[in-house]
Amino acid sequence: MFKAAIGASTLQDALDSISVLVDECKFRLDDDQLGVRAVDPANVGMVDLTLSPGAFESYSADGGVIGLNLSRFEDIVSMANSGDIVHLELDEETRKLLINFNGLSYTLALIDPDSIREEPDIPDLDLPGHVWLMGEDLSRGVKAADMVSDHVRLRINEQTESFYIEAEGDTDDVDLELTSEELVDLDAGPADSLFSLDYLKDMKKPIASDAEVHVEVGEEFPTKLHYGFAEGEGEVTFMLAPRITSD
Amino acid sequence: MFKAAIGASTLQDALDSISVLVDECKFRLDDDQLGVRAVDPANVGMVDLTLSPGAFESYSADGGVIGLNLSRFEDIVSMANSGDIVHLELDEETRKLLINFNGLSYTLALIDPDSIREEPDIPDLDLPGHVWLMGEDLSRGVKAADMVSDHVRLRINEQTESFYIEAEGDTDDVDLELTSEELVDLDAGPADSLFSLDYLKDMKKPIASDAEVHVEVGEEFPTKLHYGFAEGEGEVTFMLAPRITSD
Amino acid sequence: MFKAAIGASTLQDALDSISVLVDECKFRLDDDQLGVRAVDPANVGMVDLTLSPGAFESYSADGGVIGLNLSRFEDIVSMANSGDIVHLELDEETRKLLINFNGLSYTLALIDPDSIREEPDIPDLDLPGHVWLMGEDLSRGVKAADMVSDHVRLRINEQTESFYIEAEGDTDDVDLELTSEELVDLDAGPADSLFSLDYLKDMKKPIASDAEVHVEVGEEFPTKLHYGFAEGEGEVTFMLAPRITSD
Repeated sequence: MFKAAIGASTLQDALDSISVLVDECKFRLDDDQLGVRAVDPANVGMVDLTLSPGAFESYSADGGVIGLNLSRFEDIVSMANSGDIVHLELDEETRKLLINFNGLSYTLALIDPDSIREEPDIPDLDLPGHVWLMGEDLSRGVKAADMVSDHVRLRINEQTESFYIEAEGDTDDVDLELTSEELVDLDAGPADSLFSLDYLKDMKKPIASDAEVHVEVGEEFPTKLHYGFAEGEGEVTFMLAPRITSD
Repeated sequence: MFKAAIGASTLQDALDSISVLVDECKFRLDDDQLGVRAVDPANVGMVDLTLSPGAFESYSADGGVIGLNLSRFEDIVSMANSGDIVHLELDEETRKLLINFNGLSYTLALIDPDSIREEPDIPDLDLPGHVWLMGEDLSRGVKAADMVSDHVRLRINEQTESFYIEAEGDTDDVDLELTSEELVDLDAGPADSLFSLDYLKDMKKPIASDAEVHVEVGEEFPTKLHYGFAEGEGEVTFMLAPRITSD
Repeated sequence: MFKAAIGASTLQDALDSISVLVDECKFRLDDDQLGVRAVDPANVGMVDLTLSPGAFESYSADGGVIGLNLSRFEDIVSMANSGDIVHLELDEETRKLLINFNGLSYTLALIDPDSIREEPDIPDLDLPGHVWLMGEDLSRGVKAADMVSDHVRLRINEQTESFYIEAEGDTDDVDLELTSEELVDLDAGPADSLFSLDYLKDMKKPIASDAEVHVEVGEEFPTKLHYGFAEGEGEVTFMLAPRITSD
């Protein structure tokens, strides 16, 4: 049993954060939250999303799991105006999701959850460096790095209490320094790791410019990015595996 | 003899409604109206456009027929600002159309009307179902149908007095229900016909969101779409042949 | 020695006017101005740009010459907001240009100036016809000409004191007449020359719609276009070789 109503833009934000990594995924429809966990085919990036019932206009579910084609779901929801309420209802018999808004009814065939990749366990890492920054600053650093390289370094300077987004190209270098005044907050620790820009570019896409992002980072360790949406009723964690430094 | 002056955006609206079906057409330059009738190369869609002298700043014509390359004519007119007055004058000797606006003079070579396809006779059909709806609702239904299929069904439910724009895909279905409250008006009758989405997508393009469209529909019969522009001084009728239902 | 600070949009305007002709160029860093002169690989178009110290927030230079990859430089500057101040500093030892704005540091490898094409001498021509017009009118004439031909004629009618931007296609012709009332100013003289539209389209790109352009033109002679930017502290001259008239 699953029946819910949700603002179109909240649903869109949720779908966008998953579709940057996978095309299909499982929605866990628990009574106390809707949850999605997925890992990309190359095992480099993971996403963990939760939406609490408070993010919905109405929500009732009893623990089922459904498999969804995300791009199709996104196409439908993109037809809604941002103020529209999207009604979702699971038809248990036909295994279809009924989607309704503004007079429009869409019957979306579900995917057998067993045919979708296992949900990953996102490890507890206890990373030493913590940075809180605005989405637009993350975005700016990633875009600058992309001009010179395929990789980006995230680094904390514990002395100056600054966070660096850096890239080294064949001839040119670029780095964005964010001092503690420019950051929302910083909990300095030994942190210096290299990541694939392709993944980080995708992960920054669903993050609003004015969202606060909590970045966890260590030394040649994975990074975690946390951000909220839907006035805190929705939460996303991205985890990205490091590239091994080549020097 | 043909000499006229017309607002650039009115002329643009007129050309847009013809060019969705054909690349070349004949303009009949009668003294009481400018008229265009054309059928697409596959004989599936027809257009009938009339512009009365009231749509023009000035208009004088005596019944000639000229052949025009529409995309070239549209390119020229697209250079005008929406407030510009476009002056048109036929040079009988050189068989060219002189186009002037805002200091710009363009000499457009005409096409021999005999080399252009016959103008179609648009049949009088007396279709049983009539729906008046806003351009934006037609657009929404067509766009939704396009997500799942190449065909779209237009249907009236005589009991509920609702109009349906529906599509059935291989796995997913979509339908937009427009109740009599959401429609401008409805004259219910037996109506259920299937159409090619490619054509209907093209036909909705020139229709403004806030234009009122009169849709005539029957059972496995062609549909007719009527709409006005230029404050009622311009009128367009599209006719679209049905696809045979495959069930 | 070179160290300067400049508004991002002024720098962008300067780079745009050079990059329409060449990918790499030399910047002459004199104490009284920054200067660039370049000719395109086909020797058809030339540009001469000067920026006086007044265009900068701060400027100090002592006559060096540096070689720059323009598209890379433009990419970096495009990341700045229009209000940002861009700091430039030459690192003499590493032969790199340090670019800083808004927390972002970019190290741009320079190109050996000896590997870049000689700077052209832009000839003093004393052309007989002079026209001053708005950027948007030049743009409109060039765009119209582009609908029918690859070439455009610039012509002055000394009797009517009008300037013409004209093109002759295989079947269609177009011309934009700008009377002395529509021009900013006119100094009539015998002027009728044909030019490649590809070049003139590129040269009009960096010219703002509301910029005043001074066009010098003769009879089958090159044309010169002059315009200012950065409140008169920046000046650009384009010179374009004529096409020989084919009639």
